[in-house]
Amino acid sequence: MTAIHPVILCGGSGTRLWPVSRKALPKPFLPLVSEETLFEQAVRRVAGDDRFAPPMVVAGAAHADVIMAQMGDTPGARLVIEPAAKNTAPAIALAAVLLPPDAVMLVCPSDHHIADSAAFRAAALAAAALAREDYLVCFGIAPDRPETGYGYLQRGEPLAGGYAIRRFVEKPDLARAQDYLASGDYSWNGGIFALRAGQLLEEVAAHRPDMARQVAQAVAEGREEGACFHPAAGPFAAITGDSIDYAVMENTARAAMVPVDMGWSDIGNWAALADALAATPGAADAAGNIARGPADFADCDGVLAMSDGPRISVVGLTDVCIIVSGGEVLVTTRDGAQVVGKLPGAVNQ
Amino acid sequence: MTAIHPVILCGGSGTRLWPVSRKALPKPFLPLVSEETLFEQAVRRVAGDDRFAPPMVVAGAAHADVIMAQMGDTPGARLVIEPAAKNTAPAIALAAVLLPPDAVMLVCPSDHHIADSAAFRAAALAAAALAREDYLVCFGIAPDRPETGYGYLQRGEPLAGGYAIRRFVEKPDLARAQDYLASGDYSWNGGIFALRAGQLLEEVAAHRPDMARQVAQAVAEGREEGACFHPAAGPFAAITGDSIDYAVMENTARAAMVPVDMGWSDIGNWAALADALAATPGAADAAGNIARGPADFADCDGVLAMSDGPRISVVGLTDVCIIVSGGEVLVTTRDGAQVVGKLPGAVNQ
Repeated sequence: MTAIHPVILCGGSGTRLWPVSRKALPKPFLPLVSEETLFEQAVRRVAGDDRFAPPMVVAGAAHADVIMAQMGDTPGARLVIEPAAKNTAPAIALAAVLLPPDAVMLVCPSDHHIADSAAFRAAALAAAALAREDYLVCFGIAPDRPETGYGYLQRGEPLAGGYAIRRFVEKPDLARAQDYLASGDYSWNGGIFALRAGQLLEEVAAHRPDMARQVAQAVAEGREEGACFHPAAGPFAAITGDSIDYAVMENTARAAMVPVDMGWSDIGNWAALADALAATPGAADAAGNIARGPADFADCDGVLAMSDGPRISVVGLTDVCIIVSGGEVLVTTRDGAQVVGKLPGAVNQ
Repeated sequence: MTAIHPVILCGGSGTRLWPVSRKALPKPFLPLVSEETLFEQAVRRVAGDDRFAPPMVVAGAAHADVIMAQMGDTPGARLVIEPAAKNTAPAIALAAVLLPPDAVMLVCPSDHHIADSAAFRAAALAAAALAREDYLVCFGIAPDRPETGYGYLQRGEPLAGGYAIRRFVEKPDLARAQDYLASGDYSWNGGIFALRAGQLLEEVAAHRPDMARQVAQAVAEGREEGACFHPAAGPFAAITGDSIDYAVMENTARAAMVPVDMGWSDIGNWAALADALAATPGAADAAGNIARGPADFADCDGVLAMSDGPRISVVGLTDVCIIVSGGEVLVTTRDGAQVVGKLPGAVNQ
């Protein structure tokens, strides 16, 4: 059986994790949950296992240097430099054009946390098997709360190792999210996909013919430079950007999903990071307080204190995140974590 | 009528306002409530008014330089350098020995905030009139809450401009503090006194004869150096330290008080500072948030954010104090403010 080709997407600006995540060094490249960065974890998750080929990373030019540095010694890895940010569909199509048509791609965001790598790899194998049968396969993340910030997948008929997808649901309101959670029929769409390269390109050509043509032209006129591939800027800049969900997944007749429970988090804000750390053995004290950097707690519980230097002393607080980084101090409740990206400091970086 | 002699006491280490207040630069010498320091406010409160003589400041050698700098151009001011910290009774007795016996002293802590200077001066005049009749006079601060951290005075028979003191009460429990507040008969002992120098020395001699002799000897063997007086270290070091309340006020038959409502606060912790600032016109925004230094608030109320440089961004919090100073970050609830002095950072300065 041929190896699975990891395609790691590095996009997004990550203002919701300000002040640690900044434009110059956004979320994927930060050691948030462990000493490794989320990008390093994404690479290592599929490394040293010959069922997986070396990764192809798709990213903007601004992050090429940090990617090369964090990739370290990963033989055979390739980096595709997007000339412009055009959302996920063109990024995935670029990778598909550069791979053989029969290659099965495992498309992964670079800024998610996955606690259980073995469960991830098992789901990847199941998804790849369906992708070889020309299904376009989503990872369906087992929901553990009525989250209103994610898209949901409703499962349909069983397939070998997974299910057809009955429908995609955009971010629901709380009442519907609670119904979805109770029904057991819905999973989160975690943005992880298994796709056969040739099949994906056929679907893009069918549903976004301009995009398919422009991506093909950008690759045909691009240039190889060591391990980096530079698509031509002109045709790529002309693309109307779109997500893989809108452009392909919600239009194809062959959408499938594999259910997976792997301790997944998109680390979408400081409260999510606090949760991911709280689930990491040894990270929290007996009262559920977590220190990353020097911190003292008195009469606190569920406090995350994260500092790049100054000591943080906290008294009497519950479920608060305190972040000290690069001369900025952020103090937020768990609910407040959702609006951090709109703070003046985050907006006017 | 002879002028009143302000005697300003500079003692205490102020760990409860850590990390701004430190041993090297404690609370009196910090601009906490306004652009002026509490010490500067104490000096200015009695300046430019010929009913008050130039101040005499009693302090330790460690703070002589900052006192001289902050005193600025105060003609006739004198500085008495305590060779050791012996609490308030010896400090006040030192000043009494150095003044004429008929001088009326107005003894003031240097680290309190008084919003209404006119009310303070009016009370000082009433207290001085009683002191000239050889009463030992406390300022009786009008209580506005059942505070358990202060001593209370119970008023007795009326006197001209004040009352005799029926009894002194040490820090009460909450139930008794509530009773005191409801009765209207009790005031806080704010540590401000009017005392005729000769009378005070007689009382010290009666109740603490060793202290009286040792203070007299320390002055007799001391030396003048410009505006500074240095009592002799040997006799002063031998004193058994005590507060003026224990040594004199609770023992004298001539204790009196003048009631005063002057927007007083001892700025005893960060919550007290937040209250004093909230009562200062223009200091708080519409939601009661107060910024000293760069700060942004979203969905907050009653938050104090104080910084010596880094911006503080706060989301979703209520009644919290956030202090950034000298490379330390403190985040505390109002209740928690009482234990700040016990934090590792405050203890191990």
